[in-house]
Amino acid sequence: MTSSVSDLRLVLALDYGGTKHTAAVLAAGGRGWLAHKRVYSPPGADGDYDRATMIRMARELLARVEGQLAAVGVSFGGPVDATSGTVRLSHHVPGWGDTPLRDQLQAEFRAPAAVDNDANVAALGEWKFGAGQGCASLLYVTVSTGIGGGWVLNGHIYNGADGMAGEIGHIVVRPGGAECVCGKRGCLEVEACGTAIARKMREQSTASKVMEPFEVWTGESVARAAQQGDPLAQEVIDDAARMLGTGLGSSINLMNPQRIVLGGGVIKSGERWWRVVRETARAHALPQMRVDIVPAKLGDDAPLWGAVTLGEALL
Amino acid sequence: MTSSVSDLRLVLALDYGGTKHTAAVLAAGGRGWLAHKRVYSPPGADGDYDRATMIRMARELLARVEGQLAAVGVSFGGPVDATSGTVRLSHHVPGWGDTPLRDQLQAEFRAPAAVDNDANVAALGEWKFGAGQGCASLLYVTVSTGIGGGWVLNGHIYNGADGMAGEIGHIVVRPGGAECVCGKRGCLEVEACGTAIARKMREQSTASKVMEPFEVWTGESVARAAQQGDPLAQEVIDDAARMLGTGLGSSINLMNPQRIVLGGGVIKSGERWWRVVRETARAHALPQMRVDIVPAKLGDDAPLWGAVTLGEALL
Repeated sequence: MTSSVSDLRLVLALDYGGTKHTAAVLAAGGRGWLAHKRVYSPPGADGDYDRATMIRMARELLARVEGQLAAVGVSFGGPVDATSGTVRLSHHVPGWGDTPLRDQLQAEFRAPAAVDNDANVAALGEWKFGAGQGCASLLYVTVSTGIGGGWVLNGHIYNGADGMAGEIGHIVVRPGGAECVCGKRGCLEVEACGTAIARKMREQSTASKVMEPFEVWTGESVARAAQQGDPLAQEVIDDAARMLGTGLGSSINLMNPQRIVLGGGVIKSGERWWRVVRETARAHALPQMRVDIVPAKLGDDAPLWGAVTLGEALL
Repeated sequence: MTSSVSDLRLVLALDYGGTKHTAAVLAAGGRGWLAHKRVYSPPGADGDYDRATMIRMARELLARVEGQLAAVGVSFGGPVDATSGTVRLSHHVPGWGDTPLRDQLQAEFRAPAAVDNDANVAALGEWKFGAGQGCASLLYVTVSTGIGGGWVLNGHIYNGADGMAGEIGHIVVRPGGAECVCGKRGCLEVEACGTAIARKMREQSTASKVMEPFEVWTGESVARAAQQGDPLAQEVIDDAARMLGTGLGSSINLMNPQRIVLGGGVIKSGERWWRVVRETARAHALPQMRVDIVPAKLGDDAPLWGAVTLGEALL
């Protein structure tokens, strides 16, 4: 018996983001893309647009590659009921409410599919291919325009009872602090994400008249100013890092994960930010607990590699 | 072939506490004790005393019961490395440092043994026999002279990387709050346990001259005063309940457990305490998460029933 190229079992990985969509195909067990494509969403894109675009893109990739599609793994940028593969909604794109995405994809591609939210899937990607390899328990936290998280325990995404585990962004780290989109005050997200860093810098610099109030700060520019020695920017970065370290410390005491992997743009805020995050987490965790906090390795590709892992688990 | 009584496979359950030790024997799969004994430790008891007492007690029970010992499950009141079954130390009794309790018991009784700390084992007991039955994810929290916790995920104790998971008592709920034994300030334990309730009442009532400073408050007497309408006691109880609800809210956001089971003496603080705990937890958790917080059912017997479950898992 000979095995032909067309016997190759393929995994389709899909990453539905708020502003961009990515699809990729690889051979089951393979570690390189056979085909890969990313498109950015035009203004006004909705759920219908997203779904049609992704399917067209996936069909195009699959047409280019010899082999048999065996499984589809999906990362979605919003709350998902992973058990049924149903998207609850997108916070960024209208027209995604209660979408049975897994069933739609299974009908479309005639292959088993699994869907989970992007923080969970990115956690799985980092566990399998990135900075969390070999860890029995992993907390992945993305610190970006918001703060999200996901758990991988014993090689599987831990979803929790309502599929909502990992919402570290909404634990309170500063009672009475800034107002969060969730309605509470002092949540980790509103005290430590990139948007929060920019907001604090704006507030502080306006108050101290360091700069014109119409100047626009971003998390990135504050980090740069801090690295260049601006004391106000350093204070803002330190504060955000302390808040993150506090939240991580709580997570360590509660779950004692083997490793915490930090992703998202804010992790590029420099050595100082990392030092304060680690020191604060260490100070909050009980002394017998190891505190292993490392940067993510896969960057923006973490959800896609996690989708591969989700797909391969179906084989 | 006939099966005789002496073919019965027995499980020995041992609960090493700070002030009392309990041993019990039951038939594997059975739900009633065949033999049971509890002894209180005399002043000055140390690790040697504890170990000898427990083995003598267990031997006595086993001599009374027909059957073959098949497994030993153990709850220990202090930090344990569950993987190796080694007791790290007891915070209450000297002479327990680095004791290979599992190996000692296996050598003594010639049966497989498993050892874990009391909060974890109690969590397992409540999951298997008590208020957590059927839950895929359970957080058990004991609110007593201190605050400890344990996780049962998918039917197994979740220990974490260093065997320290569940230390909810040391997440910070009031930054800058009271000084905790762990060296931090505002930990859940030092803001919400029974000792904390008594301390706050003492401080407040001394300050407001409600009572003579030499009167001794306990968590229990404060709760009773609150139930009888004492406004100061109500304030103290409310504050402790709010702090606990805050910590539970963080746990819910992080792990979205199906259920939280509360044990320990403080859960008898009345309807008002329960209402504030639940309301605060609800207010801190994201709206999509269910918040199911219920009282423990097994009381002081939770560790012993958990030890049975640990033992039966070895069969």
